[in-house]
Amino acid sequence: MAGAATATELDALLAPYAQRAEGCLRRWLVEPGCPDALAEAMRYCVLGGGKRIRPVVVWMSAEAAGGDGGEPADRAAVAVELVHCYSMVHDDLPAMDDDALRRGRPTAHVKFGQAMAILAGDALLTRAFGVLAGAGAELGAALAGELAAGAGAAGMIAGQVADMGLCPVAPGQAGLRAIHAGKTAALVRAAARMGARCAAADEARLRAVGEWAENIGLAYQLVDDLLDVTGTAGQLGKTPGKDAAAGKRNAAAELGAGRLGEMVDGLTARAGAALAPLGPSAEMLRQVGQTLVKRRR
Amino acid sequence: MAGAATATELDALLAPYAQRAEGCLRRWLVEPGCPDALAEAMRYCVLGGGKRIRPVVVWMSAEAAGGDGGEPADRAAVAVELVHCYSMVHDDLPAMDDDALRRGRPTAHVKFGQAMAILAGDALLTRAFGVLAGAGAELGAALAGELAAGAGAAGMIAGQVADMGLCPVAPGQAGLRAIHAGKTAALVRAAARMGARCAAADEARLRAVGEWAENIGLAYQLVDDLLDVTGTAGQLGKTPGKDAAAGKRNAAAELGAGRLGEMVDGLTARAGAALAPLGPSAEMLRQVGQTLVKRRR
Repeated sequence: MAGAATATELDALLAPYAQRAEGCLRRWLVEPGCPDALAEAMRYCVLGGGKRIRPVVVWMSAEAAGGDGGEPADRAAVAVELVHCYSMVHDDLPAMDDDALRRGRPTAHVKFGQAMAILAGDALLTRAFGVLAGAGAELGAALAGELAAGAGAAGMIAGQVADMGLCPVAPGQAGLRAIHAGKTAALVRAAARMGARCAAADEARLRAVGEWAENIGLAYQLVDDLLDVTGTAGQLGKTPGKDAAAGKRNAAAELGAGRLGEMVDGLTARAGAALAPLGPSAEMLRQVGQTLVKRRR
Repeated sequence: MAGAATATELDALLAPYAQRAEGCLRRWLVEPGCPDALAEAMRYCVLGGGKRIRPVVVWMSAEAAGGDGGEPADRAAVAVELVHCYSMVHDDLPAMDDDALRRGRPTAHVKFGQAMAILAGDALLTRAFGVLAGAGAELGAALAGELAAGAGAAGMIAGQVADMGLCPVAPGQAGLRAIHAGKTAALVRAAARMGARCAAADEARLRAVGEWAENIGLAYQLVDDLLDVTGTAGQLGKTPGKDAAAGKRNAAAELGAGRLGEMVDGLTARAGAALAPLGPSAEMLRQVGQTLVKRRR
């Protein structure tokens, strides 16, 4: 694939949005009446780390669709990030990937025990929909529908079930694509469609950002597989080589870095093409996609 | 407390609704694209058992508020039952209550393994909100808000955190009430308010069914604690004596059966009084409450 983005390039592009995401997450994460110990665990799982890619996708998809998105987009950004964070917490559990390190820190169950990690994950998922419900009337239900579809049994969870070897998966590239479509692309797609909905996008625009997201999500997960093979814990903030250790399928290991690079380039091109009908308003979204798939951490 | 309801009385009252619940659950549980293995686990966790009390509360609260509720109420009934089922699946995990028996069958993690049980629980919770989103426009968001509040970090999950000893809880009756309010009453309250919302209830009616539900939920959990001390696995379809085995607080053990009976009577009376403003349309709801707290299984 084309030249790698430096950490600095990626940070420069995402930093203002990551800061905005942090503010929105702090605002909506903990509701009144939540026990302090649970709030502490939820904050640990969510705040102070992460590239906030999914919130960025929400906001830039709103922009691409020609609007700002307003508070509903902020709520959608929070909701999709809460879902991402809960999925990491549950994925890291001993019965799942059994990971001890995440974002350079002990994982939630190492820090708070398994019971609290399970419950904090459940609370984050539930809160995501509570935050969306506050977007009010028509938009709240539409956003919840997008998020539930992307995060649910035919989306992200289907990908996790496949990734964990809990259901049959086709051999070769088709099977890898099915895993990646679920475990990564489905939620990125939901983020993009939620953002566009907040900007009152019509069906054509919803489809355009959804197709961009699907392709970028697939490319992103291919890069993730590559980094799992080539990265170090210091670079990644998490344990590398975990696919091999867990006997999981890894695109870089199966297809080789060369073929993987070609696939990333093809997906990135298709993602860019999907945005063509949106014109210049989609320029930032396109740029984010290109930078994301060139990342090295 | 006053004379015990026989299993037959309870069944006769609930059976038609339980059957309706089963039909609605079958209709909405599995979405297209869900892997077969995951669908099988989700069905196992949800179908073919349970008294379907929360769906009954949704429907009868709609009736109490003067309406039928229509399809939105059916969706709310499904959603609240999916949340109840997911919470059982996660509660039963080895890191939580470590239960092997539920509704007279092996628990989900015994049957499918822990990873699938965690993921199936996550999928059920996500699906609950997906089903609500389908209620359309304004009602979908309002229902999602009610469910998220009842099921979330200040509701059901707060109760589980307290019940697991993961946060400080006051001694005596106040602490028990806090645990029971979260782990049982919050979701029953959400069920009641969702039902009433589907019947276009005003704030006064929402408050009335909410207060009924809060009191009946608390009484129901007191009876649950009593049955945990006095019941058998054959009667209950789950392991009795688990509070004592897990070192958990149990109202019957702490307060004695006599005091517990007085409390149940008091809560039931307050629940009935809360319904007074609703008049005869609330008669069935009142009767369900009275029967529920007299149950022996």
